[in-house]
Amino acid sequence: MKYISLLGATGSIGTQTLDIIQEHPSEFRLVAMSVGRNIALARKIIVENKPELVSVVNKEDADRLRHEFPNITFTYGAEGLVEIATYPKASILLNAVIGSVGLFPTLEAIRNGKTICIANKETLVTAGHLVMNEARKYGVPILPVDSEHSAIFQALQGEKEKNIERLILTASGGSFRDKNREELQNVTVEQALNHPNWSMGAKITIDSASMMNKGLEVIEAHWLFDIPYEKIDVLLHKESIIHSMVEFHDSSVIAQLGTPDMRVPIQYALTYPDRLPLKTANRLNLAEIGQLHFAKMDMERFRCLHFAFEAGKIGGTLPTVLNAANETAVQAFLDGKITFLQIEDFIEKSLSSHKPVMNPNLSLIQEVDLETRAYVNTLLQ
Amino acid sequence: MKYISLLGATGSIGTQTLDIIQEHPSEFRLVAMSVGRNIALARKIIVENKPELVSVVNKEDADRLRHEFPNITFTYGAEGLVEIATYPKASILLNAVIGSVGLFPTLEAIRNGKTICIANKETLVTAGHLVMNEARKYGVPILPVDSEHSAIFQALQGEKEKNIERLILTASGGSFRDKNREELQNVTVEQALNHPNWSMGAKITIDSASMMNKGLEVIEAHWLFDIPYEKIDVLLHKESIIHSMVEFHDSSVIAQLGTPDMRVPIQYALTYPDRLPLKTANRLNLAEIGQLHFAKMDMERFRCLHFAFEAGKIGGTLPTVLNAANETAVQAFLDGKITFLQIEDFIEKSLSSHKPVMNPNLSLIQEVDLETRAYVNTLLQ
Repeated sequence: MKYISLLGATGSIGTQTLDIIQEHPSEFRLVAMSVGRNIALARKIIVENKPELVSVVNKEDADRLRHEFPNITFTYGAEGLVEIATYPKASILLNAVIGSVGLFPTLEAIRNGKTICIANKETLVTAGHLVMNEARKYGVPILPVDSEHSAIFQALQGEKEKNIERLILTASGGSFRDKNREELQNVTVEQALNHPNWSMGAKITIDSASMMNKGLEVIEAHWLFDIPYEKIDVLLHKESIIHSMVEFHDSSVIAQLGTPDMRVPIQYALTYPDRLPLKTANRLNLAEIGQLHFAKMDMERFRCLHFAFEAGKIGGTLPTVLNAANETAVQAFLDGKITFLQIEDFIEKSLSSHKPVMNPNLSLIQEVDLETRAYVNTLLQ
Repeated sequence: MKYISLLGATGSIGTQTLDIIQEHPSEFRLVAMSVGRNIALARKIIVENKPELVSVVNKEDADRLRHEFPNITFTYGAEGLVEIATYPKASILLNAVIGSVGLFPTLEAIRNGKTICIANKETLVTAGHLVMNEARKYGVPILPVDSEHSAIFQALQGEKEKNIERLILTASGGSFRDKNREELQNVTVEQALNHPNWSMGAKITIDSASMMNKGLEVIEAHWLFDIPYEKIDVLLHKESIIHSMVEFHDSSVIAQLGTPDMRVPIQYALTYPDRLPLKTANRLNLAEIGQLHFAKMDMERFRCLHFAFEAGKIGGTLPTVLNAANETAVQAFLDGKITFLQIEDFIEKSLSSHKPVMNPNLSLIQEVDLETRAYVNTLLQ
């Protein structure tokens, strides 16, 4: 039995993680979780999974739930996230929160020897050097949950790092893959949220449309697999069937494929290095699909991907600026304050107005994160 | 340094194996080899690779070469093949002969503790039970050289057998993939030899056109990976880019891809469990290829594949009949004695006129092999 702490239980990855836990009741148990503002869903999860510790956003929600569920311990806020991440009974932390709030709890979980299943991109993007150093120091595995990184991780099983020629991340192209830059001028929030292959949260769906999602994944892959950016390629593959690939120096390519279903990589992270049956998954039927398409990635069409490669290569605090500017600009787009293409402009302005500092510690990362958000907000006025 | 014995050095797989050996002179050395009737090519190989022991088909060739190369030992015939296979200095036997002559030398090599790299399909098809039992007994690895089995073998690295849902062998469809059965009536030897993706020997190219090649591979996969026939699928994939796949019970599929180049699986077998660079290989460029196609395999269109599945499932001496009937019929087709579709008819007749004996030993396999060839020859008259 593996005991699991889950950060971000009410989100898209969170609820699918709970599906996997419930599908294998003799293998997994949820012991601690954090939720956001969706208290109705939190109640349902509590009833179904009976966790021992639950963290909510604010004190009022914690007090209310404490009355409703007297046998469960409730906590809240930033400290609550750390309590969930370090809950002693859990051996695994699955970090599925969105944004940079996932960073500090992850570092604390590593220091407490937890196996980390990471779906929180921002943690690796802004502080990959800190997270991977700490993981090495404490001998803790960092297991990817993202379908692309899980694919690479699966392709690397039984292989040696020295034999890797390059990583090939596939990208569906998102909601706007068939639009040129002119057509992107007037796209709406609704159109952007309509992803062709994956059903995901709003932030990541917008990031898919802007290709920033792939950009963040490139930086994540750099840290997870300790591979230089020159050896990471992105390939357009609109069906999202080949989830990513590894090319070795003998020219052999190993790929992981499947119908788009996040539960597969989530389960793989939880069962690693083993696998368990997933009976409810749709089996891949390539004969039925008939064709898979591939195309070269156009960095001028998808400027966010270019920004990400550049920010990653320079490193230091620049990926934090990239991420914070993107988070703030995407929120502004979702709120109807800016156009889709202004997301790119705001990121570009943020990057060019920042002087990167190398090898930043946690407080400098947090400082730069806040500064960048403030800067983007000045652009909004 | 790995010392290599090579059966079938002048054939298609043999010469490509020599390419790999020559590309890595500090890793591999050819110490013993057998050749067929192409003595001119044998001379060239001897000069370039300086093997210590060479086996030819007949005594006259051995005597002649002994005069030309006084520092090299020559032998010949069936005993010569066994001498090559068991040459003490070699740690690896790469068996690239065509037909059932490869069987006995392979068993002897196993008993002498050699690692077996197997490109000789007939050995596993007719005597998979003997070969795999002997390999288990002597703790000897049987490494596939065929691109499909190498793909499956690579996909299985780091994975557990218990988690396999099915093996998916891909098939290009061969020279006649776009022809229906009516159009197959009058195809010529020349047309059959024109394989769209792979440059291979005549026998295997005809087997690709009739889909018997895939049938033999299904039986081979059954033995190599210890998987029941019900868990082996064949998928039409005309580009031959995905060389084969493994589906696991969590629905995840691992595939091996590459441009069609037999040197890649040959090298993998020789370097396993490591990889070495192969600088002269063409890198896979999926963006340039653009599309991969897949289609359901039609067992009525490709009757040989159906025969192979049936012969494999029943087992015993039946796969030997399948193989011997096919070898004889293909030769008759290449000699212009029968039509392409008669290959199927002769195989079908041979299978239905044979009463299979279970768990045959080597001499019974050889007896059935000869009987079947004689039977097919009576059909030719």
